[in-house]
Amino acid sequence: MSEARQFIGAGNAQRPFYVGVDVGGSSVKLGIVDDLGRPLSALSVATEIAEGPDAGVRRIAAGVGQAMADAGLQPAQITAIGLGTAGTIDAAAGMLLGPVNLPGWENFPIRDEVSKACGLRVLYTNDATAAGYGEFWVGSGRQLTSMVLLTLGTGVGGAIIIDDASLDGSHGNAGELGHTTIDYNESARQCGCGQRGHLEAYVGALAVVDRARQRLAGGSPSSVQERLAQGEPLTPRVLAEEAEMGDPLALEIVWETADFLAIGIVNAMHTVDPAGVVIGGAMTFGGRDASIGRRFLDRVRSEVRRRALPALAQRTTIDFASLGSDAGFIGAAGLARRAYGRVEPHRNP
Amino acid sequence: MSEARQFIGAGNAQRPFYVGVDVGGSSVKLGIVDDLGRPLSALSVATEIAEGPDAGVRRIAAGVGQAMADAGLQPAQITAIGLGTAGTIDAAAGMLLGPVNLPGWENFPIRDEVSKACGLRVLYTNDATAAGYGEFWVGSGRQLTSMVLLTLGTGVGGAIIIDDASLDGSHGNAGELGHTTIDYNESARQCGCGQRGHLEAYVGALAVVDRARQRLAGGSPSSVQERLAQGEPLTPRVLAEEAEMGDPLALEIVWETADFLAIGIVNAMHTVDPAGVVIGGAMTFGGRDASIGRRFLDRVRSEVRRRALPALAQRTTIDFASLGSDAGFIGAAGLARRAYGRVEPHRNP
Repeated sequence: MSEARQFIGAGNAQRPFYVGVDVGGSSVKLGIVDDLGRPLSALSVATEIAEGPDAGVRRIAAGVGQAMADAGLQPAQITAIGLGTAGTIDAAAGMLLGPVNLPGWENFPIRDEVSKACGLRVLYTNDATAAGYGEFWVGSGRQLTSMVLLTLGTGVGGAIIIDDASLDGSHGNAGELGHTTIDYNESARQCGCGQRGHLEAYVGALAVVDRARQRLAGGSPSSVQERLAQGEPLTPRVLAEEAEMGDPLALEIVWETADFLAIGIVNAMHTVDPAGVVIGGAMTFGGRDASIGRRFLDRVRSEVRRRALPALAQRTTIDFASLGSDAGFIGAAGLARRAYGRVEPHRNP
Repeated sequence: MSEARQFIGAGNAQRPFYVGVDVGGSSVKLGIVDDLGRPLSALSVATEIAEGPDAGVRRIAAGVGQAMADAGLQPAQITAIGLGTAGTIDAAAGMLLGPVNLPGWENFPIRDEVSKACGLRVLYTNDATAAGYGEFWVGSGRQLTSMVLLTLGTGVGGAIIIDDASLDGSHGNAGELGHTTIDYNESARQCGCGQRGHLEAYVGALAVVDRARQRLAGGSPSSVQERLAQGEPLTPRVLAEEAEMGDPLALEIVWETADFLAIGIVNAMHTVDPAGVVIGGAMTFGGRDASIGRRFLDRVRSEVRRRALPALAQRTTIDFASLGSDAGFIGAAGLARRAYGRVEPHRNP
């Protein structure tokens, strides 16, 4: 929420300004971003999927108005809106096609509807690409000339940015790294998509919890068991907390998750060979803010070094994302800037 | 050899002209290529690795002179040379670094040495990229806006071409698809690189032969056994021939190879989402010229459709390469054309 945060004032910000909008299944994050990628305001509104996409667009437009007011700006001072949504999209047509976590919003011309409701041009992309571009522009990837972002949550998403251009793919599905196979065997774990052996079936939040559940059912002693006995649900957070306290079972799950993630990262490295890989999302055991999160990252790094081609093992950087849940709206604004703002491409050093 | 082939005459060819050179472990293929990607001449010279890189450069220069004479051209009529080699390379520095199949040629400034010996500018790239660009420019990929090439031989290589640009990667190692993991388990097959579970350990020529050997050792009855009893070595060609004749064991190996290849293809599709995938190299069971090769391709296609995201399953084309062993020198010439010739990028429709 905007009250709790420090934003750059409109007087100190670098014009021109952009709006970034990141539409998720439960909330829409949006804000005003300046030409250097700094937010002037940011807020979150409930998506309220059940009310339908037209109501959703009205809520987005109201949120955009609020964000402009918070930043002390008029619509005429905004160059364009960058809009990212989850789900399969047709970016060229501006259509939200089959959004798994936005049921009832299928085949909705969201780009043009948001443009009409806000009176501004809209650049439309998917949320993973937006987050990837945000990290590349002003986040952990800002020193990288090319970057792969892996977003770990319930789903495992990805984005590939090369020389200031997102690699969208011929059919808009590049970067679907969660659905690459790391185990072709029939015995492999089943993914949410129905296939077996996908990366997401090992490092997605549901998979991590399920792997822990299986070990607990196998009778491994663990302080996690005590928390479940107190009625707590088994969550990645519980696992992270108990791993932080040194519980062997929870630690085992963390190290295994790191090892699986490293395999997916090396596959992406051997395919697109980015300058660096950035890991974001909730499923990072606290990320850089937790000791166990940092040890998770160390384990990922050493496992990547062990598995990668020698030419890449030491040279490809592996880091946590740094923009948190702001990455999507900031990146969407950055993509709008690239499309409608300055003509010169942004080049990382 | 040039005698047996029909080439376009210099009078009918479209200027400007380029030389393409493709340096492999046993032979160097080279030729003159016109502005539309048509060879005016082509020949093959022995690499003679043991004589060292300086002698190799002299042999290449003599071959280039011969190819020009065959085409009825003078050096002044050539715009530039495109040079592709196997191995790890530093394209920007023009250095051959650590070529596995060119022992003794390490850290050799091959680009500048070839340039000096031939008196022409040289564009330097790796052989997989050259072959990929050849197929994209005038081969199976000529209708595609983006393409992944998988080359199946002893090694499994790859190249990624997007909008007339090869994706080389930040460290020159993009497209190393043979070294992506499709089975993370300890029990997975070992790759030539030492790691386990890589695609190459399943669909490379040595892997295919080894998988057949294991089945034969398991006692499966097969006409392959009879050929080995007659003193023939077990080769992919023997397997292709016996599969063509309907031998169940050989057929099983062909279908399994198709299934493994499909997993690697889908991983590449879910990472870069190309318009199409092109499969080249010797390890294709005869390719489009053999009934079993075409059935192999059908099996790859149906397995890709079964495994790929619905948005991609029907829309991504899967085809055999069409330039055979000419792809490398034609593509190298095409990359020289892109670097030194016409300014406008080549755009497939």
